[in-house]
This record gives sequence, structure tokens and C-alpha cells, in this order.
Amino acid sequence: MAEVVIYIAHSVDGFISDRSGGLDWLAPFEGYDFGYDRFVAGVDAVVMGSNTYRVVRSQGDWPYRGRSAIVMTKGAPIDGDGLAVFDDRTPAELVQDLIHAGRRRIWVVGGGGVIRAFIDARLVKRLILFQIPVLLGGGASLWPPGKRKTELKLLRATTHLNGVVETEHEIG
Amino acid sequence: MAEVVIYIAHSVDGFISDRSGGLDWLAPFEGYDFGYDRFVAGVDAVVMGSNTYRVVRSQGDWPYRGRSAIVMTKGAPIDGDGLAVFDDRTPAELVQDLIHAGRRRIWVVGGGGVIRAFIDARLVKRLILFQIPVLLGGGASLWPPGKRKTELKLLRATTHLNGVVETEHEIG
Repeated sequence: MAEVVIYIAHSVDGFISDRSGGLDWLAPFEGYDFGYDRFVAGVDAVVMGSNTYRVVRSQGDWPYRGRSAIVMTKGAPIDGDGLAVFDDRTPAELVQDLIHAGRRRIWVVGGGGVIRAFIDARLVKRLILFQIPVLLGGGASLWPPGKRKTELKLLRATTHLNGVVETEHEIG
Repeated sequence: MAEVVIYIAHSVDGFISDRSGGLDWLAPFEGYDFGYDRFVAGVDAVVMGSNTYRVVRSQGDWPYRGRSAIVMTKGAPIDGDGLAVFDDRTPAELVQDLIHAGRRRIWVVGGGGVIRAFIDARLVKRLILFQIPVLLGGGASLWPPGKRKTELKLLRATTHLNGVVETEHEIG
């Protein structure tokens, strides 16, 4: 059974990048083993928005080699180096196509607008969040307004030694 | 040592009231013992904004009897029944005055704008949050943009049997 999963770090006040659009605020929490390697080993497709794609590319090495990578954009392709496919289809169309192509675990990387669109389209099965113990006060929000209410079922909450609270919710 | 504390329930996507401004979405979680009685027994002053005051008054019985209750408003007093004092001073002035009057534990009830103002003014010592397992998709945000970044220290995370994740953070 294929599934779509969200896996992302956010501040206690719900931001995923700081006011400058960057991820520097996460630096004090790097190097700690949150189980990312195990998570990403189980993922065979990644989907992201164009802003997230640009942030990932600016960080250096492309981290999603060996996986289908889709960048959702209505505009022209951002790069031509073949690391990602630029696609203007809807979340439902994308997921249907990825599953048809044999992908089993699809990670919607971000940002907030893309994540909300997949949740509102009832495509997401699992929500894994890392709450970082900081209030950023501004930046890109993980949770722009959505279209509907969605009930969640808490599967687990894990308290990491560095104060990060990881939660895993299932969506009905 | 007097302290200012935040204690509030919010959806996973950071809303504290639903699109209609109400608290009906919390109904499935009422009746469960989150330790509220013990918390409120230790509080001798409450501070809130005018919207929060109106929501509390609309719920029936005034729940803060025997405590100093301050409603922050720049406008005219909303009621004249003496349950609350209407005050146009800043967070720093209010806290100074409450402490001077012998109050030891001041609960900033809400809403989001008032909470952010107290945090940005570096007046808050403790942040107790109840994350309810639902995405509301819209409503009043717990976290409107603020003025600064604030580091937090996680003291504990408690997983309740109904899927609510309670966290307690200390500030500086």
C-alpha cells in the first residue's frame, strides 16, 4: 500500500524557515541522530515546491539521488540538469502517477503551501513533525490557511535529549 | 519569585479558535483530566485580550473568581460588573503592577497577539501548550508574527491517552 508522508522540522511558533528564508536556525540541532537516514531510506519519491527546491539546491549536494524528485511549479523548469522533474499537475494527479510508476512512499518535503495542498486533497497518510524548542517570531509558515478541518490520530510522541519533540500522526 | 506563564490549547496547525471564532472543536477533549484544576489553583492573576474576554464571558460562569483579572484594551471598559479590570497599559507595566500588588503567578490566557506581546517583552517564564490532534485549517492563530527570536528549554513532554501532547518550555 503506497503512502504519502510529511516529515519536517518547525519552530514552536510554526515557522519552517527564518525571516531571511534560511535554515541557519536549525544549525544547533544538526549532528543529532533523529533517525533521518532510516526515514529517507524508505522513501522512493520526493515532492516539493519551487521555493523549497531552490533552498535545497543552495545547500550544495542534491540529497535525493536515486529517488524520483518532482518540483511543483506552474512556471518554466528552473534547472535542466535532470535532478528533478518540473511538473504543473495537481497533487492528486501527481500521486496517482507516482503510484502507477511503482513508487511506494512519497515524501512531500515542503513548503507549507504544498504540504497543505496535499493534506486538503486528502492524500497524506502520515505526518511526522519535529518541534524545535525556539520561537522564531517570523519566517515562512508551515501552516498557511487550508480548506478544511482534518482529524489526526497521534501514533507516538518522542522527546529527544536536545529538547526536540517528535510527533507522528496518522490521518484517517 | 513571581512568574508569568502561558497555558493554552492549540491545533497542530497552530489555531486556538475555529473559523467561527469558537471553541467547539475542543469539545471532544473536554472531561479529560489535563491537570487544569491544579494549574489554576496556583494562579493568582489572569491577563487576557478583549476578544478572549468576550469568548470567556459567552461561555457562562466567570471561571477566574478570587483572582485578579485584567483585560487589555485601549478602548472603553467592556463590562461594568467588576469581574475584570480593563486596562490600557503595556505588558511590562501590568506585570510590574501585579507583582507589586503581591501576585505570584500570572497567567496570560490569550489570545495570540497578547501572548506574543508578553513573550516579545521578555516577561514570560513558562510556556505550557496542549497540542490537540486536529488540523483546523483556519481560525485565530496562536502565533501571529512577533518581533524577535526566543530560545526555549524543553522541561517535559507529556503524551495524554486521547492524543493530546502537552509540552512545558522554560524561557531564558
